Amino acid sequence: MSYRRARHSLLPAAVAADEAAVLIRDGMTVGMSGYAMAGYPKAVVDALLARTRNGEALSINLVTGANVPWLDDTLGAAQIIARRSPMCASRTLASRINEGAVRLVEQQMNRMPALLRTGRLGRIDVAVVEALGFDRNGDLIPTSSVGMTYHLMNAAESIIVEVNSAQPETLMGLHDVHTPLAPPDTQPIPLVRTNQRIGRTSIPLDRAKVRCVVETHIPERLGAGPGGTEETSRIADNLFNFLELEYSEAGGVLPPLQLGFGGIANAVAQAFQRSGFRNLEFFCGGVTEDVLELLASGKASALSTGGLGMSERVEQILKLLPSPADHLVIRNGDITNNAEVIGRLGVVALNTGIEMDIYGNVNSSHIAGSRVVNGIGGGANFAQNAGLAVIMIPSTARSGSISNIVPMVSHQDIGEHDIDVVVTENGAADLRGLDDGERADAIIHRCASPLYREQLERYLGNAREQCGGHHPQLPQEAFGWYRRLKETGTMLEKSNEER
Amino acid sequence: MSYRRARHSLLPAAVAADEAAVLIRDGMTVGMSGYAMAGYPKAVVDALLARTRNGEALSINLVTGANVPWLDDTLGAAQIIARRSPMCASRTLASRINEGAVRLVEQQMNRMPALLRTGRLGRIDVAVVEALGFDRNGDLIPTSSVGMTYHLMNAAESIIVEVNSAQPETLMGLHDVHTPLAPPDTQPIPLVRTNQRIGRTSIPLDRAKVRCVVETHIPERLGAGPGGTEETSRIADNLFNFLELEYSEAGGVLPPLQLGFGGIANAVAQAFQRSGFRNLEFFCGGVTEDVLELLASGKASALSTGGLGMSERVEQILKLLPSPADHLVIRNGDITNNAEVIGRLGVVALNTGIEMDIYGNVNSSHIAGSRVVNGIGGGANFAQNAGLAVIMIPSTARSGSISNIVPMVSHQDIGEHDIDVVVTENGAADLRGLDDGERADAIIHRCASPLYREQLERYLGNAREQCGGHHPQLPQEAFGWYRRLKETGTMLEKSNEER
Repeated sequence: MSYRRARHSLLPAAVAADEAAVLIRDGMTVGMSGYAMAGYPKAVVDALLARTRNGEALSINLVTGANVPWLDDTLGAAQIIARRSPMCASRTLASRINEGAVRLVEQQMNRMPALLRTGRLGRIDVAVVEALGFDRNGDLIPTSSVGMTYHLMNAAESIIVEVNSAQPETLMGLHDVHTPLAPPDTQPIPLVRTNQRIGRTSIPLDRAKVRCVVETHIPERLGAGPGGTEETSRIADNLFNFLELEYSEAGGVLPPLQLGFGGIANAVAQAFQRSGFRNLEFFCGGVTEDVLELLASGKASALSTGGLGMSERVEQILKLLPSPADHLVIRNGDITNNAEVIGRLGVVALNTGIEMDIYGNVNSSHIAGSRVVNGIGGGANFAQNAGLAVIMIPSTARSGSISNIVPMVSHQDIGEHDIDVVVTENGAADLRGLDDGERADAIIHRCASPLYREQLERYLGNAREQCGGHHPQLPQEAFGWYRRLKETGTMLEKSNEER
Repeated sequence: MSYRRARHSLLPAAVAADEAAVLIRDGMTVGMSGYAMAGYPKAVVDALLARTRNGEALSINLVTGANVPWLDDTLGAAQIIARRSPMCASRTLASRINEGAVRLVEQQMNRMPALLRTGRLGRIDVAVVEALGFDRNGDLIPTSSVGMTYHLMNAAESIIVEVNSAQPETLMGLHDVHTPLAPPDTQPIPLVRTNQRIGRTSIPLDRAKVRCVVETHIPERLGAGPGGTEETSRIADNLFNFLELEYSEAGGVLPPLQLGFGGIANAVAQAFQRSGFRNLEFFCGGVTEDVLELLASGKASALSTGGLGMSERVEQILKLLPSPADHLVIRNGDITNNAEVIGRLGVVALNTGIEMDIYGNVNSSHIAGSRVVNGIGGGANFAQNAGLAVIMIPSTARSGSISNIVPMVSHQDIGEHDIDVVVTENGAADLRGLDDGERADAIIHRCASPLYREQLERYLGNAREQCGGHHPQLPQEAFGWYRRLKETGTMLEKSNEER
C-alpha cells in the first residue's frame, strides 16, 4: 500500500494556487489530469478563472486524457480555451467549437499515448495534475482518475501538483498504473482478468520538473446524471432479453461489460441491479455511481475504470466496501481503451449513439453531420475490439420528428462491420452473419420506430431498384431527410404524417 | 521440421476429386482454405465446375478466410456461389453481388475466428482444404497460406483434404500456427518480433471428420499483378520523402510495414528495392512477389504473411533463400490481422482506397456508395491499430473526370481518426495533431488534384459559412458531385472546366 504524504522533501514547498497559476501564460499548451469526469485540478483552475475575471486575456490549448466536463464548462465559458483535445464535454464549449471560435482536435482515447509521446499535440508547457499526495519514493498518488496523467507529465516542461485533501483517503491503493513501452520495445500486457493488478499504485514523477505544489481542499462533486424515461427502460429491457438468451448456455455468466455515460447507460446499470445476473464485471473507460452501486450490492464483483467521479454516495460506497482494492481498479488510459485488453477479455461493448443507418453505421459525435457534441471518444475503440458490440439508441428523438434510424448517417464514428447487435425501445436486431440487405431489413423491422418503418422501407425499395443489391444508397434522397427536418420540422414525409 | 507424407494410416485412402466433390451438395455451406490469393483447393473445385457444366444445379454458401480470386472467378462465373463471406475478389462475382443475385456477407478479417467459432456464418457442412501433406502426428501441413483453415475445419461437419504435390516442398517449416483461445481463457499472444515463431508448423486435424483425401498436382499460378504508371511512381516517391524525414532520427530504421495488393502497393515495393532503406520488415495479411523480392535482394530481413501466392519466381526465390524459415513466416489469420499484435509491433499501415474525403475518411470498398468492389477486408484492422496509418491514393480517376478526394465519402470503411498521413501523386499531408478544419486544408492543398483544388476550397468555404467551424458538411452539395459525374461525365463544375 502506498504511503501518502502531502509534501515531499525533494519537492518545492507548497504555494498558493494563484502563485502556481502564474506559470500558465497566454498561448501555452496546458495538460491537465482528469479522465471520465474525475480527478482534475480545481484550485489552479479557479485561479485562472479569477485572472480572466480581472480582465486578463488568457487563451490556452487544453489537453486532457478524456472527458472532463467541469474544465470544459468553466474554462470554456471564460473563453480561456482556444484549442482542445481529445474531446469536448460541455455544451458551452461545443457551441464555441461549432462557431469556429475554438478548435477541437478530436482524438480517440487509444491514440493519446502515442500522440503525447511523440509531441504531436504540441509541446506541453505546463501539466497541472491532481494528487492525493506522494508515496515514499516521491512518486505521485493520483486521486479519482489515472487516465493520461503519466503521459501528460512526461510530455510537459513543468508540472504543477495540486494535492487535494478533500479527495477521499479510501482511493489509496485502488490505482493500477501500467504503462507499456513504445514499439519496438512493447511487450504483451499481462492483464487477463478485469480486476487483475499489473502495475504500481503511484505514477512515476520526474521531480525536477515539479515547479509548484499547491495544497487545497475542494470536494469533487459530480452533478446528477440524466434520469431514466419509459423509453430508456424499454431499451434496457430489450437489451436484457437479448443478453439472457445469448448467455443462457453459459449459465447467465456475462463477459466483462463496457458501459458509458448518459440516460441509457444509467437505465441499463439500474436494470442490472434488478436483474438475475450475478458476478457482473465492468471494464470501462469511466463509470458512474449507478455502476458502482452494483459493486455495493454485490451484483458486480469486478470493476475496472479510468476514472471514478466523486459524489457523496460514491465516497460512502468506497468506505463501505470491505476490501475495495480486490474489486475496484482505477487504471491508466493506456490500458482502459487498449485493443489488446478489450479483445482478450471479450468485452461486451454497450455503446450509444446519436443516429445510425439502416446498415448499422453509427454516428456518435456530430448532429446532422456538422455540429459536434463530444467527439468520437473511446466508443469505437471498444466496438472494434469487443467480443460483442451492441449499440443502444432510441428509435426517435424530439417526439418523433427525428428518426434516429436514418437511410445514411450524416457522420460515421463506428462502422457497420464493428456492430453486432442493435437495441432500441422497439426491439433488438442481431446482425451477426447477415449481409447488408438482411441487416437493413432486420434493423428496419425490429428496431425502427413504427412511425418511420414504411418510410424507411420505401427508401430501401427505391435504393434497391435504382442501385441494385448489395448496399444500395441514394445519398440525395437520404440527405433529403435532414432537409425536410429543417424545412418542415420533421423527417416524416407528408404522406406518412397524414395517416 | 515437419515430416511430410501424402497419406496417413488413420486417414481414408485417396479418392478421385469428383468422388470427393460428391460430398458437396446444392444448398450447402462450404468452407475452403485460401487466404491472400493463396493455398486454395483446386481439384475439388474443378470437379464442382465440371458438374455444373454437365447441367447440375449447384449453389453454395462459400466461406474462406479472406480473398481468393480464383475461387470467386471460377465458381462465381459458373453461378455456383449464392452467398459469400468474408470478401469478394472477382469482378464477375462483384457484378452478381451488385445485381442482387449473390449475397455478400462482408466481414473484417479479425472478426472471422469468433464468427466461425460461434457458428454465426452458418454451420459449415464441408471444409475443403489444400495441404502439402500430414506430419508424423497426422496433423495437416498447409500449403501457401494458413489463414482461417483451422477455424474452418473446426466449424465443419466433414473435411476434404486435397494434397497438392505441385505446391513446393520449400514451404515446409515456413508455417507458424498459433490459435488464441476464446475469452475468458485468452492469454497474451507472445509475438514481439515480425519473424518470431510462436506456434506449430502444422494445423491440428480432427481425423474423424476427414471424409476424403484427394491427391492432385495442380500448380498455383497467380496472374501478374497490375503494373506501375507514372502516377503510382509519384505516389511512391511522395511516400518515401515522408518516410525518410519521419524516420531520419531513427537512422532510417522503419517499423514493420503492412502493404496490400494492387498497382500502388507494387510500385511501393519496387521503390523500396531502389531505396536506401535496409532491414525492412513486413507484417502483412498477404504479400506479393514484389515484396518477396525484397527478401531475395536482402533489403528486407523479415516477412510475416497469411498467404504467399505462388508463381514461378516465388518458387525460385523460396529455393534460393538460404534459411527461409528464419525470415519468412506464414501465419494464421488470428495473428495476421490481430489488433494486439499490430499495435504492439507499431506497424506502419500502407493502405489504399477508392476515395477519401477532405477530412480523411476513407472509402475502400464501394464505388459511389453502392457498388461493392472487394469488401472492407483487413485494411481497417491495420489502420485502427497501426503505429502510423497511411492512405495512398491517386488524386483523380478516369483522366481527371473523377476526384478521388471528395467533400464527403459515399461510404466509409476507415474513419478519419484512424488516418495519420495521406499520400497522393501531388504530395503528402501529415494530419497528426490537426483539427478537422486544418485536416481539410492540408488534404486539399497538399494532396488534391490541381484540377479540383479550387472546387474543393469553394465547397469548404460554403460549408464553413453555412454550418460553422468544426466539421462543416453540406451533404446535398457534396453528393451533387456524384450526380454531376453521372449527368455530365465529370465531377468538375462547368466554371472549372472552362478555365
